[in-house]
Amino acid sequence: MEKQVEHQGDFFPDYDNKDSKLIVNEGVPQPPITNPYVKKFYKKRPEILTADQYMEGILAGNTTILSQAITLVESYLPEHRAVAQEIIKRCQPISSERKTMRIGITGVPGAGKSTFIESFGSYMTSCGHKLAVLAIDPSSEKTKGSILGDKTRMETLCNDPMAFIRPSPSAGSLGGVARKTRETILLCEAAGYDTIFVETVGVGQSETAVHSMTDFFLLLLISGAGDDLQGIKRGIMEMSDMINVTKADGTNKEKAEMAKVLYINALHLFPPTESGWVPTSVTSSSVTKEGLPEIKEKIDSYFELVRGNGYYEKRRREQARYWMYESINESLKNMFYENPEIEKLLPEYEEAVLAGKLESFTSASELIDKYKLSK
Amino acid sequence: MEKQVEHQGDFFPDYDNKDSKLIVNEGVPQPPITNPYVKKFYKKRPEILTADQYMEGILAGNTTILSQAITLVESYLPEHRAVAQEIIKRCQPISSERKTMRIGITGVPGAGKSTFIESFGSYMTSCGHKLAVLAIDPSSEKTKGSILGDKTRMETLCNDPMAFIRPSPSAGSLGGVARKTRETILLCEAAGYDTIFVETVGVGQSETAVHSMTDFFLLLLISGAGDDLQGIKRGIMEMSDMINVTKADGTNKEKAEMAKVLYINALHLFPPTESGWVPTSVTSSSVTKEGLPEIKEKIDSYFELVRGNGYYEKRRREQARYWMYESINESLKNMFYENPEIEKLLPEYEEAVLAGKLESFTSASELIDKYKLSK
Repeated sequence: MEKQVEHQGDFFPDYDNKDSKLIVNEGVPQPPITNPYVKKFYKKRPEILTADQYMEGILAGNTTILSQAITLVESYLPEHRAVAQEIIKRCQPISSERKTMRIGITGVPGAGKSTFIESFGSYMTSCGHKLAVLAIDPSSEKTKGSILGDKTRMETLCNDPMAFIRPSPSAGSLGGVARKTRETILLCEAAGYDTIFVETVGVGQSETAVHSMTDFFLLLLISGAGDDLQGIKRGIMEMSDMINVTKADGTNKEKAEMAKVLYINALHLFPPTESGWVPTSVTSSSVTKEGLPEIKEKIDSYFELVRGNGYYEKRRREQARYWMYESINESLKNMFYENPEIEKLLPEYEEAVLAGKLESFTSASELIDKYKLSK
Repeated sequence: MEKQVEHQGDFFPDYDNKDSKLIVNEGVPQPPITNPYVKKFYKKRPEILTADQYMEGILAGNTTILSQAITLVESYLPEHRAVAQEIIKRCQPISSERKTMRIGITGVPGAGKSTFIESFGSYMTSCGHKLAVLAIDPSSEKTKGSILGDKTRMETLCNDPMAFIRPSPSAGSLGGVARKTRETILLCEAAGYDTIFVETVGVGQSETAVHSMTDFFLLLLISGAGDDLQGIKRGIMEMSDMINVTKADGTNKEKAEMAKVLYINALHLFPPTESGWVPTSVTSSSVTKEGLPEIKEKIDSYFELVRGNGYYEKRRREQARYWMYESINESLKNMFYENPEIEKLLPEYEEAVLAGKLESFTSASELIDKYKLSK
């Protein structure tokens, strides 16, 4: 994977800069120890290619260029934005035509998500699929360890020329991270990956985000449900298209099979899905590889169903609209919550509401009034 | 129930009004057939009381004054806002102290929600509870019938001096309607109602809104699950604290009991709740009244549990904060979506996104840029 090199080039400061706050003693000017011009130098030496060059690389399936383009899309630097937008714009129609399979994967801690993705992903590539594995982990800034861990655990897939693994974008809110992952999907699809895994990392709120950018949602559980479900949020089960009871091998196999039957029965009690698909449960083992072909078969029959009945297209369109509105609303919120006046007042108001001293709506409308005045 | 009298008083227009657009023939002035001054006259003859007067009536449990105060809170007229806010502000601490039971009720079509509320509500009042029944129905402007229907079906409760029934506020978005219902809860609690039912009306999105303003969520289902669940959205089951299989009488009783057992088993497979409560299933009949005492017992033990372990307070506080942010975000959205420029452009952009011609985020950021410029 590429490493971001932030500090490079000639570190000698630009003394012609009028905004310089550096106080220089009379005599020989000294370069500062912490260089305030790094960004400036970085700008002076543009590393980024043109949109045409990126697109050429992406369409040729060049993973180095694809990685660089994703880094650009993930970047928050204003100077990267125009090219990034252009790449996304050009990938969009190509991606739309390819009718890929976007599969969301989540699981309880201990279900062996990484080993499952490794073994099931390898099975998929052995069947001729080109696979991209992406992740949404809004907490990854804090828990960088988990990603590194994931990558070492996915050794086979990392070295598989049919697979492309990309860790979660590491900066920003859930909305921001999810947005970037969704854009990355488009780039990967344009680069020829027909199967996309989007995994949730850690115990978080990212399940809904993953669900809203994928076609199929796979939940990994282990036998002995109940206490073991501690890690997943209520509501996740009902959005799952398939529950896979993992670690169905050795002495655990029988228990896993029993759990599967329980889940099949429970899933039947849920309201029917809009897709017409009846969510089901299976078992698998990442050790013996048993169950993996069955999972692929079931996923294939899901896609056959939804491509046939129009739900595939319908859901993709609804997701596109959903993300348009999500993105608008996210921007509106950022404008408000990053307003200096609001940033100052919000904690006081929140405290008053939590203490029961102020009604939620009174508090909100006073803050909105102040926001309007502050502009 | 009170009837809103919108047109009353002296309808003769105010000819001194400088802004008058009325063209008057020379000679005797004629009042217009459609009176453009109604609002003005309404203002001149204030029907609204002072906040003190409302509070006196509410605290005395005067249902006429309570109804009028709720109407004021529901009003979108700017001149009502200050007094309404003042009432809410004063009811807030009183409501907080009373540690009431807020119970959300939803159900599949055909589960007999109204008759259940009628019979269970009557049982609650017979046990000495003062009950307010509220509703959230964002579609009620279109489907006024259902509310009228509800009221005729709740005859006993309507005539019960221990019960107060208030239909859903009828105007605005789900956010607006939910907000007003939440404020109404505060007024009812200040007026001495210790038990609040908030029902969802129709098949809608209101379940989440109801869930986020109540302490306990009750889902009504009927036996023969599966196809009969068509009416409820996926995810509702997992937010329920209790599933009541209704119509457990006559030849249906056995089937209802079987369904109950199925649901109890299914509920055990769900991740544990944060409250520590184990969601359960019961059966009831609004005809024979069987099952009603058991439901009350279970609800009582829920409240005993959550008041004991601090979850009651914690959830109430979190809900207050949730509604503060919801309300802020709702206002921010209204400011954007009601902007004339955006109103004009949005349909085009949405169409382009739905057609796959424009990426969601590109579309969103272009709209946001236009919004910033338009202000």
